[in-house]
Amino acid sequence: MQAAEWARDITDTLRGEDEQGALERLARLQPFDRAEVLAHLEPADRLRLVRAMPTSLAAETLEYLEPETQYRILDHLDEPLAAALLQAMSSDTVVDLLLALHPLQAAKLKAWLPSAYRERIDTLMTFPENTAGSLATIEYIAAREGWTVQQALDHVRKVGHDAEVVSYVYVVDARGRLVRVASLRELILADPRAPLTAVGRPDVIAVRATADREEAARLLTRYDFVALPVVDDQNRLLGIITIDDIVDVIHREATEDIQRLGGSVPLAESYFKTPVPVLFRKRVGWLLTLFVAEAYTGTVLRHFEDILSRVVGLAFFIPLLIGTGGNTGSQTVSTLVRALAVGEVTFRDWLRVLARELATGTLLGTVMAAAALVRAYTLGVGPQLGPVVAVTALFIVLWASMVSAVLPLLLHRLRVDPAVVSGPFISTLVDGTGLFLYFTVAQVMLRLT
Amino acid sequence: MQAAEWARDITDTLRGEDEQGALERLARLQPFDRAEVLAHLEPADRLRLVRAMPTSLAAETLEYLEPETQYRILDHLDEPLAAALLQAMSSDTVVDLLLALHPLQAAKLKAWLPSAYRERIDTLMTFPENTAGSLATIEYIAAREGWTVQQALDHVRKVGHDAEVVSYVYVVDARGRLVRVASLRELILADPRAPLTAVGRPDVIAVRATADREEAARLLTRYDFVALPVVDDQNRLLGIITIDDIVDVIHREATEDIQRLGGSVPLAESYFKTPVPVLFRKRVGWLLTLFVAEAYTGTVLRHFEDILSRVVGLAFFIPLLIGTGGNTGSQTVSTLVRALAVGEVTFRDWLRVLARELATGTLLGTVMAAAALVRAYTLGVGPQLGPVVAVTALFIVLWASMVSAVLPLLLHRLRVDPAVVSGPFISTLVDGTGLFLYFTVAQVMLRLT
Repeated sequence: MQAAEWARDITDTLRGEDEQGALERLARLQPFDRAEVLAHLEPADRLRLVRAMPTSLAAETLEYLEPETQYRILDHLDEPLAAALLQAMSSDTVVDLLLALHPLQAAKLKAWLPSAYRERIDTLMTFPENTAGSLATIEYIAAREGWTVQQALDHVRKVGHDAEVVSYVYVVDARGRLVRVASLRELILADPRAPLTAVGRPDVIAVRATADREEAARLLTRYDFVALPVVDDQNRLLGIITIDDIVDVIHREATEDIQRLGGSVPLAESYFKTPVPVLFRKRVGWLLTLFVAEAYTGTVLRHFEDILSRVVGLAFFIPLLIGTGGNTGSQTVSTLVRALAVGEVTFRDWLRVLARELATGTLLGTVMAAAALVRAYTLGVGPQLGPVVAVTALFIVLWASMVSAVLPLLLHRLRVDPAVVSGPFISTLVDGTGLFLYFTVAQVMLRLT
Repeated sequence: MQAAEWARDITDTLRGEDEQGALERLARLQPFDRAEVLAHLEPADRLRLVRAMPTSLAAETLEYLEPETQYRILDHLDEPLAAALLQAMSSDTVVDLLLALHPLQAAKLKAWLPSAYRERIDTLMTFPENTAGSLATIEYIAAREGWTVQQALDHVRKVGHDAEVVSYVYVVDARGRLVRVASLRELILADPRAPLTAVGRPDVIAVRATADREEAARLLTRYDFVALPVVDDQNRLLGIITIDDIVDVIHREATEDIQRLGGSVPLAESYFKTPVPVLFRKRVGWLLTLFVAEAYTGTVLRHFEDILSRVVGLAFFIPLLIGTGGNTGSQTVSTLVRALAVGEVTFRDWLRVLARELATGTLLGTVMAAAALVRAYTLGVGPQLGPVVAVTALFIVLWASMVSAVLPLLLHRLRVDPAVVSGPFISTLVDGTGLFLYFTVAQVMLRLT
């Protein structure tokens, strides 16, 4: 842990009454690392350094701290400094902070903001968590339609300090509607006297504030932008989403899908921040549901109790056969759920997917049938059981392939997250139906009635 | 599919001999969309438009096409045009193209490049696929230590057209070593007469070319950069990695982890690009391995054949109990594998992880024991089996929690991708050991010998 070492070093420097030295060391770090160091310091030292730092440096650092820590620091500073820091922080961080606080605490902080800024923050705060609007920041650079390139560049120089991303200048009309976008590169390379309307492009790719945050991620990924404008339903510019926030979204969405595929409800926080009772709650629902679903394997087995007691050897292969079915299903489901998530596959492809999975399943089933034959032989259960187990292995693999090819696509179509068809889900489904297959095959092939 | 419609529209325009109109329509699209449209066109129309497009527009478009399509286009153009396009494309795309081609085809294309550029491409081509170096592009903006801000800005204006990212200017010394970085924003806001050494920061965060690409992703995500410099072991600047390539890496790594967790070897290509025989090969290995591992459930069952034939009712609960163990394991494993991948958990946390999972497992196990008791009662297997099944449920859940907490951490420590501890893997492991637990509990509680 480098941050802990840095923090010790800075604490020592402070103890030696060399505040200037401590500040210089901090200033040399990247904002992320600086925040880590602050998080490791004693509260009193932390406050002392935040007070002594230039406002922009302090604000930049605060952005990387957790909301609770941000509040604890802001709450202990004098109001003018705290207000200045809050205004210098990027607006998406401020929104996250305000949403994480108790309403009374949030109201206190909001009272420090100038009313125009507060209104814009209020607008951003209305967008629910999974929307594009919730990711937006208002620190973008906007220019007016009638300006020249030189005017736009002068504007960048004036407001660029506060902007989160200066790669693009968004051109709006008199009613605030987004009509054009130009990259800073295009502005610098253009003739300064040219009208702004001669630079950049008119068909701006933007996302509606109410759209899903995944839609924003999809657009940014597809077009390789660094920032994406967010507009309301009248195409008025509300803010921008920056690529670093999208990277976080991509990480979070993948985490959620993996946890769902593992058969649990996604955790809202990171692993260690999730208390044990919450871990329990996120898991117990599916575990019980699957238990109830799996319970009908008992019903199937009792239904075939007679056959089972006449040929006890059949029981030896129960875990092996249903396990193989579950494994096949888990392989297919995970591949397809991911392909759906990244848009490689859609519902309209269902027939193609089914054909591919059945073809793959036939190959896999044949191999598993051969393996089952070998296993029956080595277990020495007599010559009759081998073919039963082999035929069942083929059928179960085919059955699992079919179910796990169709279900995720169907759920996607019904706008249910296909990741709820987890490995455990498909295993459970295949277990009961697989047992039914097994004993039916046994009944027919062994001529039992 | 919007691209298909656009393509039809453009084909019609071309048929009406309005090449200029078709070009204008194409130019208005984003590069990604333009490439999609080209991919939908007839080869002859495609070539005609590429020939008529301005070089920079054509190169930008080509970058979004697949290597095979890129080659098919370049191969049909006159050498001067093809060479110009190749040089205008970003170097990481050229490297990917050259690596995807047959060596003779690659040699033909390489011969068109100026020798200095060819040498730098050759250097980039030496880095293996999963390294940071393999993602690097040489279209960055470098400035010399001795320059002023004005000189640097003039240089940006001169070479900015070719750069992939103009957000940063990298300052190198006379030996090519990376000594400083300044953002374009800092340059624009600075006094033009100031020395370059007064702008930006000296401690540049960079990644070694030989480092894992995940390390580059981690750094970019952590520090919210738009591009990351890539250096050799003497800190000489080799290239930069841009955030859009990192976004692709993050997507790909998540896909690989999900496929591994589902119990298959990750696919190298997207789902529909993977032929059925390859799907089969990626899955059959684990399926057979798990089959062999699962086969010992047969051995365990045969070992307890005597007990099983005396109390056939025990068999009814086999799928239910081992299924619940597998589900618990799958939940834990997926959560931990992801936490390891994003760096939330490391091997040093193993004791904390184990404690948390055992605590969660105790809660879950208690609930599942109660559920098992209910199920035994509803299945009407007599009053003796209920307690056996309940106690086993608790033990199996605890056992699964323990194994799935420790194994991923251990593998991570041994530098094996923890995602190989897939859901199917942990289910299989828990199946055999769980059966052993079950019959041992039955033996003890039912006093069978």
